[in-house]
Amino acid sequence: MAEHLTLSVDAMGGDAAPEMVVEGVELAASSIGGDVRFLLFGDEQSLHPILERFPLAGQTSTVHHTTDMIKSTDKPAQALRGGRGSSMRLAINAVANGEADAVVSAGNTGALMAMARFVLKTLPGIDRPAIATTLPTQKGRNVMLDLGANVECSAENLVQFAVMGEVFARAVLGIEKPSVGILNIGVEDLKGNEAVKLAAGILQETPLPIKFHGFVEGDDIGAGTVDVVVTDGFTGNVALKTAEGTARLFSSALKQALTSSLIANVGALIAKPALNILKQKFDPRSHNGAMFLGLNGICVKSHGGTDGTGFAHALQVAADLSRNAINESIKSDYAKLRADAEVIQQAAVSS
Amino acid sequence: MAEHLTLSVDAMGGDAAPEMVVEGVELAASSIGGDVRFLLFGDEQSLHPILERFPLAGQTSTVHHTTDMIKSTDKPAQALRGGRGSSMRLAINAVANGEADAVVSAGNTGALMAMARFVLKTLPGIDRPAIATTLPTQKGRNVMLDLGANVECSAENLVQFAVMGEVFARAVLGIEKPSVGILNIGVEDLKGNEAVKLAAGILQETPLPIKFHGFVEGDDIGAGTVDVVVTDGFTGNVALKTAEGTARLFSSALKQALTSSLIANVGALIAKPALNILKQKFDPRSHNGAMFLGLNGICVKSHGGTDGTGFAHALQVAADLSRNAINESIKSDYAKLRADAEVIQQAAVSS
Repeated sequence: MAEHLTLSVDAMGGDAAPEMVVEGVELAASSIGGDVRFLLFGDEQSLHPILERFPLAGQTSTVHHTTDMIKSTDKPAQALRGGRGSSMRLAINAVANGEADAVVSAGNTGALMAMARFVLKTLPGIDRPAIATTLPTQKGRNVMLDLGANVECSAENLVQFAVMGEVFARAVLGIEKPSVGILNIGVEDLKGNEAVKLAAGILQETPLPIKFHGFVEGDDIGAGTVDVVVTDGFTGNVALKTAEGTARLFSSALKQALTSSLIANVGALIAKPALNILKQKFDPRSHNGAMFLGLNGICVKSHGGTDGTGFAHALQVAADLSRNAINESIKSDYAKLRADAEVIQQAAVSS
Repeated sequence: MAEHLTLSVDAMGGDAAPEMVVEGVELAASSIGGDVRFLLFGDEQSLHPILERFPLAGQTSTVHHTTDMIKSTDKPAQALRGGRGSSMRLAINAVANGEADAVVSAGNTGALMAMARFVLKTLPGIDRPAIATTLPTQKGRNVMLDLGANVECSAENLVQFAVMGEVFARAVLGIEKPSVGILNIGVEDLKGNEAVKLAAGILQETPLPIKFHGFVEGDDIGAGTVDVVVTDGFTGNVALKTAEGTARLFSSALKQALTSSLIANVGALIAKPALNILKQKFDPRSHNGAMFLGLNGICVKSHGGTDGTGFAHALQVAADLSRNAINESIKSDYAKLRADAEVIQQAAVSS
């Protein structure tokens, strides 16, 4: 797969689709490297003129004409029933039938999750897929999951997320032995709800070579205390969006301060190259691309409001995950965890 | 109460106590204004020499000698059983027996909550106290609760938090008609767990003059979409700490950028007065002072690691809450909510 890589793309998903999708393909075609091909699912008549303007995208893409598309307002169940001929659904199908290694869409998240789950099915032993993404930290980047697929989670779900997140961190961040923490409201064993306490117990005892750190708190996300932050979808979604909101609050306050006087403006102008580095670090486009982990196929969700640069990053994430065969690793790691758990359980019963 | 105000202070709580506490009293004695007195509970021999160096604190304070104190490592149950003679416990007692209008401590949070709840009891109709604090937003400041007192919350708990938070916003932020939102992972009615959906339903129907906005998401906290953000203690604690961690991440990245080159340094030097305004806005000391809402008495928790300036702010919060008779408002608002609920229920039964 390292040489031949085929990415299936929902060309009609996202606020600025299909133009931004094609622009992303143009950028990714050169940045991903190797022999990469794109299957673009969408309206031929819209796509062809755009592809003429982006020569690299034109050379590396095959257009699969679809007239139907999922709207951002469609409910998941609605999309599942009525969207069988949509660009999103056909792009997912391409992964299921082996035509593509991964699918990327910037469309409706709920619809994408429902369809991907229905078409690709979950990996053996994984009850529920989770949404994972990378985030900037004081030490570099880390991974957080679940970000909203599962409102309520059992201890077993959290353990599955830990296994999947650890593999994701290895594949996308290239960390050899990522450390894993469970998000809680304190680091002591007594704190938190039953699910986090039980999950921590299971991860502490597992002979699986997971570097389990224990509990982490909200401020550990930005501090980069661990490489993988495991949490339920409700808490994870709130934490992710709170971080985004705080970054925006800080950015706007900084901008306001640096334009508050003529002198401040002069200072900002002089420091501009340095401030641009800062801007880049927090640029949401360079963190774009959340994966639906735990499915029998690679499905990457791009932010709907992104541009070509951001979409190219989501395509890069899909390429990294495909080339690192993430799902094979999750399957074998999780099978090992279950086998170990059975051994422990039998030992406990017979003792 | 507007003229005579007595604040009870745990002089031994906090990393830099008792020095930082006395310094806070010195600053608050002038900033609070009016006739304010402080009851300092703590070790006489440590306190007297410090009070000599802070003349205003010396003039406005009475020292109540205690030898015992709660350690930061004490478990709540341990503190409750063994800490009857501690500075924290006696400071709380002063509110219960009417000697003081409010109590402020920078000590062990769990111990303070357990003792305050045991000594002061909850307000009529309030099942569980919640921790509330103010946060900086793009529009000014808002209030968030619960921040960790209740790991799991029912819809009824969330409704009680909404009533208490709304009154808190009026008292501390001086907003005449604060808007209230429930934290969720989407703004649509379908999203979220049962508790938030039910609570939203109750608040939508209440004839109580609460300006209920509906659901808000994590990024609405920093955006200042609503004046009061209501959530369970697990999510609220994670959100608060995630915001703190993100602010720290951003600050350190900014500092790093502005010292990355000689030119950047020059720019930063010129823009320094403007950057100082930014620093002040996010200074945790100017948001210090979380209230334990829903108790039959005012109990304010200061951050344990704060300094005199931060402790003075916590004392100011206690003064504002006392002078605005926050608990009287909560009692009457909540009684009204319950009466309204009964009327609605009876109407439903008889129809």
